[in-house]
This record gives sequence, C-alpha cells and structure tokens, in this order.
Amino acid sequence: MVQIEQDILGKNDAIAQENRLKFAMNKQLVVNLVSSPGSGKTTLLTETCRRLAADKVVVIEGDQETANDADRIRETGVRAIQVNTGKGCHLDAAMIASACERLELDGGDLIFIENVGNLVCPAGFDLGERHKIAILSVTEGEDKPLKYPDMFAASSLMLVNKVDLLPHLKFDVQLCIDNARKVNPDIEVICVSATTGEGVPEWIDWLQSQRK
Amino acid sequence: MVQIEQDILGKNDAIAQENRLKFAMNKQLVVNLVSSPGSGKTTLLTETCRRLAADKVVVIEGDQETANDADRIRETGVRAIQVNTGKGCHLDAAMIASACERLELDGGDLIFIENVGNLVCPAGFDLGERHKIAILSVTEGEDKPLKYPDMFAASSLMLVNKVDLLPHLKFDVQLCIDNARKVNPDIEVICVSATTGEGVPEWIDWLQSQRK
Repeated sequence: MVQIEQDILGKNDAIAQENRLKFAMNKQLVVNLVSSPGSGKTTLLTETCRRLAADKVVVIEGDQETANDADRIRETGVRAIQVNTGKGCHLDAAMIASACERLELDGGDLIFIENVGNLVCPAGFDLGERHKIAILSVTEGEDKPLKYPDMFAASSLMLVNKVDLLPHLKFDVQLCIDNARKVNPDIEVICVSATTGEGVPEWIDWLQSQRK
Repeated sequence: MVQIEQDILGKNDAIAQENRLKFAMNKQLVVNLVSSPGSGKTTLLTETCRRLAADKVVVIEGDQETANDADRIRETGVRAIQVNTGKGCHLDAAMIASACERLELDGGDLIFIENVGNLVCPAGFDLGERHKIAILSVTEGEDKPLKYPDMFAASSLMLVNKVDLLPHLKFDVQLCIDNARKVNPDIEVICVSATTGEGVPEWIDWLQSQRK
C-alpha cells in the first residue's frame, strides 16, 4: 500500500515539475488555494478577481461536482475553467496541465487554482504551483492548524477569513496564528473579510509582490 | 488504479461487515459523525455526552493529529479513545474494530465515532456503523450538499449546526435542506446549536429512538 502511494505521488510530482518549468518559462504566478469546505475561498477569490480583472488573471476551479464556482468567477469578467473530480478528493498535477492547455494562455498570467475543499489530501499533491495558500475561517476554531498540520506546513501564507464575524464568536486570532507557526514557523498571515473588504488590499499587495 | 481502489474498499467493507455483526449481537448503536473541519462536531458531541453521560456512551475520536478532542469528551465523564490517522484522511473499519477491542465494552452501548473532518473521503468508507450523520455549519453555505454529494447521499441525518449565528449570516436554511434532498430525498434534518441548546433535545430524541 505504501509502495502504491509512493508510485502515485511520484508520478504526480514528475508532472508537477513539468508544470513548474512551464509556469516559470511563461512568467506565470500560480497559487493553489486550499481549505475546508465553506471557508469562504470562492467569495474571497471573487472579490480578488473583481479587483484584478484587468490584470491577466485566470482561475482553475476544483470541485467534486457542480460548475457553480466557475460561474461565479466568470461573472467578475475573469476567465475560469471548472474541473470536477467526481469521487476524487483533490486536484492533481495532470488535471492542472490539462486545464492550462485548454485555457490557451500567452504568458505573464496570474493563475489561481481553487482546490477541492479538504484540509487533508490536497496537502500531499504538488501541482507545480509557486505557493499553497491556506484559508481558515474564524468560524472553524483556532486548533485547526494543529489538527491538520500537513496543510499548514505546506502553505506559504494563511488567510484568516471572515474576520467580520469575530464579534459573534469565541475565536482567539493570536492563538490561531501561534498554532499555525508551531507547525510552520515561516508561514505568513493576513486577516481578511471578503464581506467588508478588510485585509483585501494587503492580500492583493502580497500577490503583486510575488509577481515581480 | 481503479482495481487497487476496489481492493482497498473491498477489504474495508469485509471488516465493516464483521463490525456490524458484532455491534448487532451486542445491541450497540453506532453512529459516524462526518463533516468539514470546524463544523462544530466536537462541541455538539460534548454537549450530547453531557446530557447522556449516565447512559452507556463511549466516543471514538478520529483526527490526523492531537488528542485534544478525546480530552474534551473525557471532561464530560464519558469514556473516549483517540485514533490518530497521521497522513490518512479518514477512519477505516479496522481502526474501529481495534478501538472497540481496547474499549472493552459489555453491550448495549451508544458508540459515537467522530470521523476526521473531511467531506469527501469518509463517504466511501463503511465502518460498520448504523448511520452516518452529516453535520453542516450554517457558516459553510447552502451549496455544500451539491458540491460534496457523496457524503450527503450516504447520511441518514443532516444536523444543520451553529444556527445561533444565522442572524449574522446570509444563509437560507430551506435552500440548504432542498439541496440535501436533491442528492438524498430521504435524509432527515434537525437544526441545532450546541451554544444555545436549540434543537439538542430533538437530536437526543432521534438518537434514543434509534436505540429501541
């Protein structure tokens, strides 16, 4: 069983490495948004696309079923492609290679990948992205980085989302950040709310700084 | 790959069937709580245990890492055992068989299994339980039953949790129920809040009705 898993991951990693080389050659920044279901990934991404729409942005949407999220992105004027994984619990590097071919990009793009909502399995699958970005809603509890350590260890940035709800919850933001840094001392953190716009400029600045 | 998956699932199903026979012989009710990370499973289960503590209740806690949840359960006076899955994204039937042996139960028990927070993978793994129960927090959005249909199709009951937060959210409870019934016309639904206690008596009644 361990051998089979290693073979699957090995094959994925080889395709991910091809993706990474292509993205570098084409001066593309690729970020892979990972989180639980319901953390607010799509709402935040919609708001992000609205602010970056004129800026060579495309989105690859992963979900078990439905094309709702790609539809929501397209309403902002940004191109989006939906990948349905069916029984599958994560996107893999081959799905991303295929989606990028269909998008027919000409270079210099900012490519957002919205992974299937799942704090476990996508942590192990390299897609060739520059960064994994973990999104954690303040409704989920401060303990999640400790309970799902692989995902937070694999991420460059944690977006603490839905901070507009903090007045209605018992959620200690600093404790959450401390927990994330226990599993990943280098993780950066930005607190955001797509509803109020709080923190969204910092998040956009972070993205732009990565494109340079 | 498909063949390998079928073999793994076939082996799991055989052990699950043994579990199911043992649970029936020992007049045990076993329910498998499944949800996203952060849906409030543990808080609801803690409140449930508090109300049923004198009633032959035990808990099997699944998490990638940490023993925090079992500790929280034990504070209610209920026995709990923690199963850490490490890289694994779900509990399997063999883990449950082993946990039940360690618990040395003498029959007539109500056994709660709290699965790893994951709306995808645990749907495919029979543990020998009587029912899967899907917990969905109102912070997660009404669309989740459509986006993660396997889990809601596999569940007998959906607990719509954290309804105390409804005044602060745009969440249409009826739309969520309609979506769940699109993928599972027979699914029962109870709205609950562990914080205010709303719906908890109905949830306890539902459990007791299953023990008869």
